[in-house]
This record gives sequence, structure tokens and C-alpha cells, in this order.
Amino acid sequence: MSLVVVGSMAFDAIETPFGKSDKIIGGAATYIAWCASNFTPVKQISVVGGDFPQSELDALTNRGVILEGVQVKKEEKTFFWSGKYHLDMNTRDTLETQLNVLENFEPVVPESYQDCEILMLGNLVPGVQSSVIKQMKTRPKLIVMDTMNFWMEIMLDDLLHTISLVDVLLVNDSEARQLSGEYSLVKAAKKIMAMGPKYLIIKKGEHGALLFHENEVFFAPALPLEEVFDPTGAGDTFAGGFVAHLAKTKNLSFENMKSAIILGSAMASFCVEKFGTQRLTEINMDEIKERVQSFVSLVNFDIELV
Amino acid sequence: MSLVVVGSMAFDAIETPFGKSDKIIGGAATYIAWCASNFTPVKQISVVGGDFPQSELDALTNRGVILEGVQVKKEEKTFFWSGKYHLDMNTRDTLETQLNVLENFEPVVPESYQDCEILMLGNLVPGVQSSVIKQMKTRPKLIVMDTMNFWMEIMLDDLLHTISLVDVLLVNDSEARQLSGEYSLVKAAKKIMAMGPKYLIIKKGEHGALLFHENEVFFAPALPLEEVFDPTGAGDTFAGGFVAHLAKTKNLSFENMKSAIILGSAMASFCVEKFGTQRLTEINMDEIKERVQSFVSLVNFDIELV
Repeated sequence: MSLVVVGSMAFDAIETPFGKSDKIIGGAATYIAWCASNFTPVKQISVVGGDFPQSELDALTNRGVILEGVQVKKEEKTFFWSGKYHLDMNTRDTLETQLNVLENFEPVVPESYQDCEILMLGNLVPGVQSSVIKQMKTRPKLIVMDTMNFWMEIMLDDLLHTISLVDVLLVNDSEARQLSGEYSLVKAAKKIMAMGPKYLIIKKGEHGALLFHENEVFFAPALPLEEVFDPTGAGDTFAGGFVAHLAKTKNLSFENMKSAIILGSAMASFCVEKFGTQRLTEINMDEIKERVQSFVSLVNFDIELV
Repeated sequence: MSLVVVGSMAFDAIETPFGKSDKIIGGAATYIAWCASNFTPVKQISVVGGDFPQSELDALTNRGVILEGVQVKKEEKTFFWSGKYHLDMNTRDTLETQLNVLENFEPVVPESYQDCEILMLGNLVPGVQSSVIKQMKTRPKLIVMDTMNFWMEIMLDDLLHTISLVDVLLVNDSEARQLSGEYSLVKAAKKIMAMGPKYLIIKKGEHGALLFHENEVFFAPALPLEEVFDPTGAGDTFAGGFVAHLAKTKNLSFENMKSAIILGSAMASFCVEKFGTQRLTEINMDEIKERVQSFVSLVNFDIELV
């Protein structure tokens, strides 16, 4: 199935308890594209400034990422974010945000993207996300949306509107609680699905992820790791693995979404092993298969009560 | 396999965001016995005061719990604990502790318990736990130990000695970090297994449980619940389900421990539905089988990467 990805392409500067990166390549759509292009072609929609390295764009093109929908604003600067992780690696402080090209970003969907069957809306201004949906002449078979608490705080109405248009919403556990006003994730899921999405994925970082649909729930663990080096982009990578598996297998059933979440979790477990997208640029299909097998071993059990 | 359980039988008074209990029956060994007796006979070792209700002892006897090793000190009072849970239900404050009969508890293993094949040491003074091991003329095939941070703080040497004698240790995630000095649970597990236990179970409450053995790891999720009414005794109930499954199936392999952990998780999910042991006294085998099936559905997936 044809996959279109919308989201930021950016520079990040990251501090973790293990070290500090220079200004490196980041952005939700970048992580999604690096991850998803292991499995399926990607049609990318984003915006970068003249300072964004051509070599990075070429590297993505070489992996089958189509960049026709990526605007390059030569006179402007690329979106920049810097942050510092706490010792637990689950929480972080934003040190600096420079919106730059993102400030007035008006995405344009190229004609060649109109065959889109799966639309992945990476975390971005909700109005930008919905404008891409509006530009699609035929509604994609599946619209998947990632978002974050920031939009709940400053533009909740826009966010709720976009949420009402999508099929699958991805949030983390604290965002699910914030959005629903419910502490129990089961209750939160019911309230959020009543806002529109038929499927809800709640990401719990090192504690795995939950997929809700109607009265069903599926749980995917995170792989217990010796070290989480840099969690930046893990959620985007997870989303990239999720939509890529659906696109590649051409199957949008709840059962197949379970497998897609396992693949997303496996890909995210690579992402955190090095700074930025580096690990994602190195892995091969044998490593991915081996990692997926670790997830099978991790949760596989056989029980019969007599 | 013959199962012997050691631990406290107590009175608890519990406050949660949902309500407040009177002085009700509690204690690690009580929860373990109520849970395990669904599956297998239990030989109990504990101590109570003259104030402990005969009706509770009779109810346990009726379920196949042998109380020959339970001392009744008629002139003394039963151990009492009261605590208050925070809104997240994962943390709690102790409001009051009256050791009473536990203060000078010297467990005596009855001759009829000497056939013990699985010994479950519920959370208790580490020296009391080790004294039971010492009294066993033949070492049980499997010794499982639960403990808590309190003993790490006030009698670490005794605790480390007891830990060195057991096969399976159960702790929660923060205790694993405290005991090992490692934040990563994978690293923590390696250090703790080097202290003696061949198996380590790390309980993560609503985030499930991990079983470590040599280089293998298994993850069991907790069932996502609409409401956790009272978490008291969930860890003890988990331990009770774990040892009961091993005892009933007479199989101490790593593979079977996975199933035992799922059963423990299923039983713990009942425990938290009502105050104290109440829910455990009501459930039947059909409900248990249905709950175990929920765990199968929760984590079952099928993935093939081509």
C-alpha cells in the first residue's frame, strides 16, 4: 500500500547522562522515513531550510524515500530542537526550540502522492496535519496520527478536530491521561476512541505499548535493554515500523496491527542504541528479524489449566 | 509437589482513593495461601495473636491449607499494619506498624512439613526466613523468596545471607535497583543473580513482571484494568500463583516458570478488584481460566518478516 509521511525534518542537539551530541539530524518524519524505508517506499512531506545537508536528502532518496513533497526554503533555517534527558531517560527538558521554517509551513501534497493508501501524520501542528488530510482527493484507507502534550496545552480545539478525522491515534501514557482526564488507561482509551479514532495506541516507553480497539486490547512489551543511550525519536521510529508493516503486508486488520506494533517496538529498540538516527541507518534485515525473534521469546508462553 | 509457605498473617487497615477499610485480614502468607489453595494443598507457617478470628483459620483449613505450623499466641496481639495509597496506586505511606506477635517470632517447622519440595518464603525478617530453610532436613527442590526495601535498609547483611540460600528471588523494580545499585533492570538482574538466586523475578506493578535466568528473559504484562481498587497483597498473590502452578504441575523448568508467572499475574489481577483478600475468597476456577485466557489474548501475536 502506498505510504505518505508528514512531519518535521530537523536538527537536534541532545544531552543524555551518557553524553552530548553535536547538532545532528532529527525530526519526526526523518525517523519515520529511516525506519519505514527498510520495508516499503515512503512519500515524504516536510520542509527544511537551506542549511539542511543535501547528503542527508540523498541518503533518504537512495533508500526509496520520495522527497517531491519536501519543500526546501533556501533562504531560511531548518527547525531546531535541543533537549536534555533526566537520569531515568523517560523525562526530558526542552532547552531550546527554533521553529524557523516550521513557523509558516504550508504543506503541499504533490499530485503523485494522491494514490496514498496509508497516511502517517507525524507529530506536528494539528492544523498542518489536517490540511494534508484535506488535500487528499480520495480519503486514505488508514490515517495514523502522532501528537504530543504541547498541542493539548496551546491548541486543544485544533487538536481535537484533527483527532476526529483519523483512524489510529498514538499518544504516550501521560498524554492519554491528560487528553481524557482519566488516570486508568482503560478508561482513558474509551474516552479517546469516542473522540473519533477507532484505534488507540498508548506508548509507555520502557514499559511497552498498548493497542486498543473497541473492547479489545493488545500489549507489546519493550525489550529490556542494558542501556538506553538516547531515546530521541524512539516514538517516531515506533510509528514508522507500525505503518510500514501495514503498508508492506497490505492488511489493516486488528490482528495485523498487533504484528505491526511488535515491529515498531523492535525498530524503536534499535533507535535508542545510539545518538539520533545513526543506528537506524546501519541496521540490516537480518538484525531486524533477529530482534523481532527476541520479542517472540520475550512474551511467548504456553499455559493450560486442568 | 508439596508446598510450604512462610509469612505473616495480619490485620491491615487500608486507605485508597476509593475508600477506607476497617481492620481487615491481611498478611503475606494469608494472601499466598488464599491464592495457592485454588490449585494445590498448602502447609502454612506463621504466627497470630489471640485476637485473630477462628473463622478465618477455619476458612483456610476448609480450602486445604494446613495450619499445624501456625502458632497462636493467645495472650498476644496479631501483627497490624495500616497504610494509605497515593492517587497513582503504585506508591503508599505506612501510617502505623504494630509488630506484636511478629516481634519475637521463632518459626517451628512441624515434622509433617519435612516432605516440602517447594518452599515459599513470604516477605518477613530475613533471619526468620533463613531459620526455616535451616530447619528443613532435606533441602527443598525450589526455594522462592519475597522481600522488600525495608530489610535492605535495616538489615542488609542478614538479607544478603538469606538471598544467597534461595533459588528464586522476587523484588519490585525499585528494590532491584536499590539492591544492585544499577538503574538498568537488565544490569540489576545480572548483579542480583550473582548474589545466589538462579532466577530473578522483578515485579513492576501495573507494568507487569520480568523473569530473568542466565541470559534469558521473559516478560508477563499486567492486565490493563479499569480500576485498581486496592493493590494490597497483589505481590503476595502473584507469588502464591507462581509457586502453586509449579507445585501443581510438578515442573520446575524455565518454560514452566513462564506459565507460572502468567498465572500469578492473573491471580494478582483479581486481588486488586476489592479490599484485602475478599476477591480471592470468591473466585472460582472458571473465572481463573477466563482471566488466564485474557492474558493469552493480550500478548498473542503472529509475525513473519519476508
